[in-house]
Amino acid sequence: MHNKRLMYTVRVAEPNPGLATLMLEQFGGPQGELAAAMRYFTQALGEEDAGRKDMLLDIATEELSHLEVIGSIVSMLNRGVKGQMAEAALEEAELYASLNAGGESHTTSILYGGAPALVNSAGVPWTAAYIDSIGDPTCDLRSNIAAESRAKIVYERLINCTDDAGIKDALAFLMTREVAHQKSFEKALYAIEPNFPTGKLAGLPEFSDKYFNLSQGEGDARGPWNEGEQWDFVEDYDAQAAVDGGDGTASVELSVLETDAVEAFATRTASDPSVNPVTGADLGAGPGAGTMTRLED
Amino acid sequence: MHNKRLMYTVRVAEPNPGLATLMLEQFGGPQGELAAAMRYFTQALGEEDAGRKDMLLDIATEELSHLEVIGSIVSMLNRGVKGQMAEAALEEAELYASLNAGGESHTTSILYGGAPALVNSAGVPWTAAYIDSIGDPTCDLRSNIAAESRAKIVYERLINCTDDAGIKDALAFLMTREVAHQKSFEKALYAIEPNFPTGKLAGLPEFSDKYFNLSQGEGDARGPWNEGEQWDFVEDYDAQAAVDGGDGTASVELSVLETDAVEAFATRTASDPSVNPVTGADLGAGPGAGTMTRLED
Amino acid sequence: MHNKRLMYTVRVAEPNPGLATLMLEQFGGPQGELAAAMRYFTQALGEEDAGRKDMLLDIATEELSHLEVIGSIVSMLNRGVKGQMAEAALEEAELYASLNAGGESHTTSILYGGAPALVNSAGVPWTAAYIDSIGDPTCDLRSNIAAESRAKIVYERLINCTDDAGIKDALAFLMTREVAHQKSFEKALYAIEPNFPTGKLAGLPEFSDKYFNLSQGEGDARGPWNEGEQWDFVEDYDAQAAVDGGDGTASVELSVLETDAVEAFATRTASDPSVNPVTGADLGAGPGAGTMTRLED
Amino acid sequence: MHNKRLMYTVRVAEPNPGLATLMLEQFGGPQGELAAAMRYFTQALGEEDAGRKDMLLDIATEELSHLEVIGSIVSMLNRGVKGQMAEAALEEAELYASLNAGGESHTTSILYGGAPALVNSAGVPWTAAYIDSIGDPTCDLRSNIAAESRAKIVYERLINCTDDAGIKDALAFLMTREVAHQKSFEKALYAIEPNFPTGKLAGLPEFSDKYFNLSQGEGDARGPWNEGEQWDFVEDYDAQAAVDGGDGTASVELSVLETDAVEAFATRTASDPSVNPVTGADLGAGPGAGTMTRLED
Amino acid sequence: MHNKRLMYTVRVAEPNPGLATLMLEQFGGPQGELAAAMRYFTQALGEEDAGRKDMLLDIATEELSHLEVIGSIVSMLNRGVKGQMAEAALEEAELYASLNAGGESHTTSILYGGAPALVNSAGVPWTAAYIDSIGDPTCDLRSNIAAESRAKIVYERLINCTDDAGIKDALAFLMTREVAHQKSFEKALYAIEPNFPTGKLAGLPEFSDKYFNLSQGEGDARGPWNEGEQWDFVEDYDAQAAVDGGDGTASVELSVLETDAVEAFATRTASDPSVNPVTGADLGAGPGAGTMTRLED
Amino acid sequence: MHNKRLMYTVRVAEPNPGLATLMLEQFGGPQGELAAAMRYFTQALGEEDAGRKDMLLDIATEELSHLEVIGSIVSMLNRGVKGQMAEAALEEAELYASLNAGGESHTTSILYGGAPALVNSAGVPWTAAYIDSIGDPTCDLRSNIAAESRAKIVYERLINCTDDAGIKDALAFLMTREVAHQKSFEKALYAIEPNFPTGKLAGLPEFSDKYFNLSQGEGDARGPWNEGEQWDFVEDYDAQAAVDGGDGTASVELSVLETDAVEAFATRTASDPSVNPVTGADLGAGPGAGTMTRLED
Repeated sequence: MHNKRLMYTVRVAEPNPGLATLMLEQFGGPQGELAAAMRYFTQALGEEDAGRKDMLLDIATEELSHLEVIGSIVSMLNRGVKGQMAEAALEEAELYASLNAGGESHTTSILYGGAPALVNSAGVPWTAAYIDSIGDPTCDLRSNIAAESRAKIVYERLINCTDDAGIKDALAFLMTREVAHQKSFEKALYAIEPNFPTGKLAGLPEFSDKYFNLSQGEGDARGPWNEGEQWDFVEDYDAQAAVDGGDGTASVELSVLETDAVEAFATRTASDPSVNPVTGADLGAGPGAGTMTRLED
Repeated sequence: MHNKRLMYTVRVAEPNPGLATLMLEQFGGPQGELAAAMRYFTQALGEEDAGRKDMLLDIATEELSHLEVIGSIVSMLNRGVKGQMAEAALEEAELYASLNAGGESHTTSILYGGAPALVNSAGVPWTAAYIDSIGDPTCDLRSNIAAESRAKIVYERLINCTDDAGIKDALAFLMTREVAHQKSFEKALYAIEPNFPTGKLAGLPEFSDKYFNLSQGEGDARGPWNEGEQWDFVEDYDAQAAVDGGDGTASVELSVLETDAVEAFATRTASDPSVNPVTGADLGAGPGAGTMTRLED
Repeated sequence: MHNKRLMYTVRVAEPNPGLATLMLEQFGGPQGELAAAMRYFTQALGEEDAGRKDMLLDIATEELSHLEVIGSIVSMLNRGVKGQMAEAALEEAELYASLNAGGESHTTSILYGGAPALVNSAGVPWTAAYIDSIGDPTCDLRSNIAAESRAKIVYERLINCTDDAGIKDALAFLMTREVAHQKSFEKALYAIEPNFPTGKLAGLPEFSDKYFNLSQGEGDARGPWNEGEQWDFVEDYDAQAAVDGGDGTASVELSVLETDAVEAFATRTASDPSVNPVTGADLGAGPGAGTMTRLED
Repeated sequence: MHNKRLMYTVRVAEPNPGLATLMLEQFGGPQGELAAAMRYFTQALGEEDAGRKDMLLDIATEELSHLEVIGSIVSMLNRGVKGQMAEAALEEAELYASLNAGGESHTTSILYGGAPALVNSAGVPWTAAYIDSIGDPTCDLRSNIAAESRAKIVYERLINCTDDAGIKDALAFLMTREVAHQKSFEKALYAIEPNFPTGKLAGLPEFSDKYFNLSQGEGDARGPWNEGEQWDFVEDYDAQAAVDGGDGTASVELSVLETDAVEAFATRTASDPSVNPVTGADLGAGPGAGTMTRLED
Repeated sequence: MHNKRLMYTVRVAEPNPGLATLMLEQFGGPQGELAAAMRYFTQALGEEDAGRKDMLLDIATEELSHLEVIGSIVSMLNRGVKGQMAEAALEEAELYASLNAGGESHTTSILYGGAPALVNSAGVPWTAAYIDSIGDPTCDLRSNIAAESRAKIVYERLINCTDDAGIKDALAFLMTREVAHQKSFEKALYAIEPNFPTGKLAGLPEFSDKYFNLSQGEGDARGPWNEGEQWDFVEDYDAQAAVDGGDGTASVELSVLETDAVEAFATRTASDPSVNPVTGADLGAGPGAGTMTRLED
Repeated sequence: MHNKRLMYTVRVAEPNPGLATLMLEQFGGPQGELAAAMRYFTQALGEEDAGRKDMLLDIATEELSHLEVIGSIVSMLNRGVKGQMAEAALEEAELYASLNAGGESHTTSILYGGAPALVNSAGVPWTAAYIDSIGDPTCDLRSNIAAESRAKIVYERLINCTDDAGIKDALAFLMTREVAHQKSFEKALYAIEPNFPTGKLAGLPEFSDKYFNLSQGEGDARGPWNEGEQWDFVEDYDAQAAVDGGDGTASVELSVLETDAVEAFATRTASDPSVNPVTGADLGAGPGAGTMTRLED
């Protein structure tokens, strides 16, 4: 069911298609409201826990309301160019100039006619590749917590970039709600006991508290992430490879037929290391590229 | 710098291109090692905190080593089909059958010739849309924590699906390391004080502890995510819309010229509600679709 | 607002993750319910006509309900593998076999753990590139009409492939609703008068009723699309090129500086037609590839 | 076969890489000529009706000619920057400025060197996800009709934005042809009797003429899309859920083994609603949420 | 202009939708005919050299003919399932089984109804990201040479997998033409003198013949690519970093205002290395990490 | 293993987020360093030839070092906006203006907060669709040669656009290394004897030296790519279709059941060529569109 009243009243001071494209980040962008709504909605459908299912449906529904609010802001900011483009109400040069006044408005006007589209501020279409749900609640709740924190920051950045009071108000509301949602997801995660490590399989004890100092040189630093009783800090390069104690190679048992085929392939396509062939680049570099020579000569 | 010894020795019992496609999930899939390595590597380049920068480079480097391990597993599992496809070492019908023995091996063999490709288990190419870094450490660390928890689970699922002891071993190592990385990222996050809410702007107090019960009906549930002193639980539908106290509409101040253009557009494209037009569907539904009538008649 | 009761009750006879992947076509596929809901929802936000805006919101809301129904079917079909994968409740070989029992279940189980994901039946993530709204109602309504007709057919195909009575029932409901929506969109389109040609600009009369018979040979056919009083049928190849009466070339006025730069570029990168150069392919084809010769010699 | 004379002569007044990026919308954009050509070409290959197959091949061939015309316009508009970029014919600052003079020319110059690329005006690569053909002629013709109407409008917008007379001319020709193509597809569709509803299966009579008023509140409207004898208008919220008369839940029959696994999973990952756990956000919100120790202690 | 006779007659022995999906690799896959046609066609539009432009148009036109041939093979292989799916001519279980008989036919049947679609053998939609043209002929010709060599191999693999004589014949024709095209592109490249290094700028002499042995350990090898008079082989790790002789750091001159902002950001988000904070993972790992209270208390 | 010293010291004169977006082309663009590194790294994992495997690992490792250098340049160029956006250190209007000062900085600032992201200069996320490796060394080396030549040119263009001496220096180094890598790949390719045609299957002699002059008209040209002893130049249109000597049609042997289904489908969906139906466009064009007529009347 849908209520035609928006969750938050939208008052925009004046059209600005350049600003509209920034707002698209929270409409059809990776940290935007569609991503949030779909993240929680699809999780709800697969959820086995009644409490979490209800929470996910509540919040998914709210995110859809937010999608409507931010989309309405985009729509209002584009309302001038929409009419002027459709009715050719400006001279060509004026319309052309208005398309290049900021952000990606050259695309949102020509392709979408000023209607809100599910793209981000660079015009990239929304993709479900943005959603990282994997069907395990201890993971998905962590993903949701992170997602809410990201959405909060993008709203903060948008607030920093506009002095339109009505938009600022609405964005502040939307930003605040991300904070509230993060709190709910945190509660739901920590109400699972234990929730770390996630899954059923324990890790191998010999590897679960090692820290491999793989990037070395000036700038090496220590902190609670690699220092203290918990950690076994491994600095020696030799101890960082083939940590199983093997030879660090990869192999597979092939059948005789498979071996024959692989060997035939390898032989047929071998690069002979002992010759110094004339190459296409030699030809292309100009005259005198000359004769193939044996390297060992 | 690169060490030719793998971080973990790979011993595969026999080729199996169907199993190889499952393993691709952690090579070129959204929760895989390339995603992890690139996530941390790009964060490191933008990092202002020396300790975190070092940690991110350490872990990014390790994830690249993991990418090499999982890619080597894929390569070994495909080594039979690679030779046989290239050399046409089997009858056509046999080769065709081998392509349809599991997973997406029909694609990995025909298109990639058995070489490991940066696609997931469904053959979808890896995309940076999988990476959710946004340049704020309190968000990015939360995203990393969530990402490590997801990668852990996908490894667990892969372990559950194969009885090849060598592969199981290597996967258990890789899985364990995700647990260790999550611990490091947690330490780095909580060493930022405060880290919640993220960003500089506080939320609006009147909205930061409200819970909107937007999904109602049988199945409604309470828990710490919406119950307790902290929460203001809003059930009334009317109180869930236009929460700012406004009228819940969207509007923008247009100039006269803009208003004229929008009105011209609206008039030109109005759908007249008072007629009942014959439509294309009426025509297509067969004879007798008849004359346009006024609805009010 | 969301009602926890589904729009249609879902009764699934038994789990079948292979069938589940087929159903994903209407969940996260191009003709599926998310595409429908987002298509209408975003159109509604940009709509100037009050009647159409209301209709678009009504139908968008219903499509979201449908998304929930089809997602619930997917979820039920995957419910067995979800538990068994998470709990490792089957032997490895059994789990592996279950992943290869049909469709893309090898991916939906390993990557998504059996939870419904916004991908199509091939595992391709949903993208807003599926949505073709452009902010003009006479176009968007036509797009909606076409979209509803496509969704109807995909449901029909799914019905043809399953004998699970509960699923068949729910699919028949969903299919029927697409028919009803098509009717509504048809009425709204034809209530705009005139609606063809779309837009404000009339076409050029000399080109708007020509039919160019560009594909010739056995199989040439006539019908109302190129035959009858309306059409000027152009068969002559010469009359099909440079129809403006010009020379059929492309040109631009360059400044002197631009001309100089283009000529320098052209000269520097010219392929000399008068020589017969030895090439990389000649080298690669084996011995005797020889000397560059002038073609005219 | 290809005729080197363009279908329409292209005369461009002066280079303008910013305008070129707008034109890309009809070259590599969703409503552009490649999309049109491929849409009809692939439909033709699967077509069983000889007349339609011929028509589809005719029009696909023409759209390829259009692709050449619009691509030639892009090429001419970029011809200045192409030479100047390749030959470094301007000072660095001048070249840099020219890249930022409009639209997406910073990308088309740096990445494509001014050559026409199959991207839209925002630089997004063309994808076959734009094509919505599904192998049913009554659907595909409707999709084609809608596509032609959209292409017409995008051409109209481009015409509105440029005062280059040669470009305007060519665009007017291209726009007009979309109108002609729409007419042909309309004739072909309505020559199928009946063509609505599409497919073989009739809809369920009890649901095919219902209109669910799911979005309620101020702004509710009636029109031929939900009003009149044809429609059964359903307003009551209760009558809008579980319309089958069931309980509106989703269920599946699980085997004992499956039930056990699902229950084990549910129990292991349950969020206990009766506790109020300390969360990560609580820790992150400041002092007093768990103890913190100094490492050096 | 289009000739309805195919470039090569297609005789398919019997329908096989599984085999059809393999063939899609050369229809809508990265190495397929659409990629080839569009690669050459777009290059032709931007080409300044008359000879190459003509050649590119010739070959682009031929690749479109090939697209038609391979698409016709796909269409014939799917012709059985197309009818049976549309007419529901088989029992549900039979249709379902036929969808799972090989490759991606579950998707090509459900979504595309057996019509050829511009996807690859895994169902991934074609994207212009496959095309690597950059508007420089010495690069683009090299890219074309490589592309033709790849297309040749994919045809060879397809030939290896089918014993349908008519298909084998057509594929052998298509494969051979890729060889011929490679030859033409080679001639055109080497007719540019010089063509290496590409572009106008020479490389820095001190770096253009160095080989950095960055991957060390067992498996190190020498060959003409890093051995011989031409090469300066650099093995020492220290000589492989900061090769400019600097300190290997990155820096930028910030204004005072910028410095202040960066420092404020760094301070606000610093991870304090001297504390060992309790983390979310600590909480989640089980009892004793902070207090938990019962809500009902 | 990773060395914190960059391969080349980065000295940036002043922040410039517009220039940063251009640099992204070589960070997350199709010709950039991630594409290069992943191209060689994945090839190495599937390589059977020890020498080439070592070379690929060496160069892949170097490309990762380059990724770090170019990413550091991006990071430095964005360092000002990063701090100012995060700390709201500028007035809203100033921040907004800074977002629209060039390139795609409106997106890199709002979405990524100034951190380097794996997108190209238009904001399109990196995709593995950019990588064209197919598991055959004679193809993959050619692809690598082409890729290095392209990367060289993009660096040259970037050098042409900036007068920041430190950036120019680093870019010149990176550009030069692409030249060196191309040389290595050339040597490795030509050390395979023979390497053309690629693969095992020879082409059909009757088609391997034909050149089809498919694009005719003014502009026809000859050169070594279609002229000389080697080539059989086919100009006659009739000789360019059905080159196998058949009838140029496509057919398949259907079973009786399949034939019945296809015929039922064809009949049901036939477009009757003998009627002139009233269409939706006729309705939409206004009054008087009238009655269906038989064309032959």
